[in-house]
Amino acid sequence: MALDLRPGERVYQEIKQAILSGEFVILQRLDIDKLAAQFGVSATPVRYGLAILAAERLVKLNSSRVYQVAFWSEQELRELYQWRQRLTKWALQSYVPEAAPAMSPDADYAGVYLTVMGHIDRNANTEARRAGRSADERLQQALRAEDDALPGALDELHRIAALLDRGGAPLANKLRRYFDRRISHCALIRSAAHAKAMPNNGA
Amino acid sequence: MALDLRPGERVYQEIKQAILSGEFVILQRLDIDKLAAQFGVSATPVRYGLAILAAERLVKLNSSRVYQVAFWSEQELRELYQWRQRLTKWALQSYVPEAAPAMSPDADYAGVYLTVMGHIDRNANTEARRAGRSADERLQQALRAEDDALPGALDELHRIAALLDRGGAPLANKLRRYFDRRISHCALIRSAAHAKAMPNNGA
Repeated sequence: MALDLRPGERVYQEIKQAILSGEFVILQRLDIDKLAAQFGVSATPVRYGLAILAAERLVKLNSSRVYQVAFWSEQELRELYQWRQRLTKWALQSYVPEAAPAMSPDADYAGVYLTVMGHIDRNANTEARRAGRSADERLQQALRAEDDALPGALDELHRIAALLDRGGAPLANKLRRYFDRRISHCALIRSAAHAKAMPNNGA
Repeated sequence: MALDLRPGERVYQEIKQAILSGEFVILQRLDIDKLAAQFGVSATPVRYGLAILAAERLVKLNSSRVYQVAFWSEQELRELYQWRQRLTKWALQSYVPEAAPAMSPDADYAGVYLTVMGHIDRNANTEARRAGRSADERLQQALRAEDDALPGALDELHRIAALLDRGGAPLANKLRRYFDRRISHCALIRSAAHAKAMPNNGA
């Protein structure tokens, strides 16, 4: 598959992966010439990749027309959590209880989150599922911070995972509380995400 | 504003406008060299614009790696209507009744639809509002066909518009029936959209 990718698509995939993995941090400036040198391509495929990432809102063009890894305002983060909560609530309407695929006990927080959400979303409307995946990508750097900012966050997720084979009101209630907690703590989560990005912030 | 747009952004805007207005029809092939000649630019900004439009799912890259104006399968169209119905239902929870801006009595169907939906969505969660706008863009060529395929479709919209200053259950019920009708007639709407695209189909 990698062989078939055009340079722009390859660069898109690589920058996206670097953002999702946290290698490129919040607010990091994405200099087109430096990225071109890093990926061994011209500026054109880098512009192509960044344009798609901007459409996906993983990067933003700032007022000086420089691309940066996106960072949410507190209000944006709150609306993003509310949106994910709503999508999850809707997905539960077509959820058929079944245990989630086995997770390694030392899976990290973001990994457990994505497994649980992907499992809940699997029978949902295609558009809703795609919207959920896109929201999760944009929340990725918040997920990494939730685990620092919210005591017991990983246990909370494991308790949700343990209810997946039962479904119904217990699962719905736990998920509601899960998102309510994030919605009411988004200032804290945002600070933690920002702090995590500091040490190697290229800005 | 137009002066500030880079070639790729300008080409993106122009192709998008041509798709939304119906100048570029369903399944029309978008040849990169022809578009470049048409817009007086090189292939690069055209590729840039098409890549963003593909991310927005207004165009698709087919199996021969040629871009075409997107066309939904019946199932995709059904899920898209269900999705829009769901977003509208959610938006109604934060809807404050108020008459829609005055519409010209000879406004076309798509124009009335977009005014009504924009009005309902105006207090909704930002993510939901954006998802609604994106769904409406992707539904644009269906909207044009609804008016042919469903008798009284324009009157139906005007009756919804007339309830906007009351809100509540009457508005919610009418909107539910509005989308239910489209969901159950999406095969018909899809055929009508396809037929409309025939005469000047560049494919």
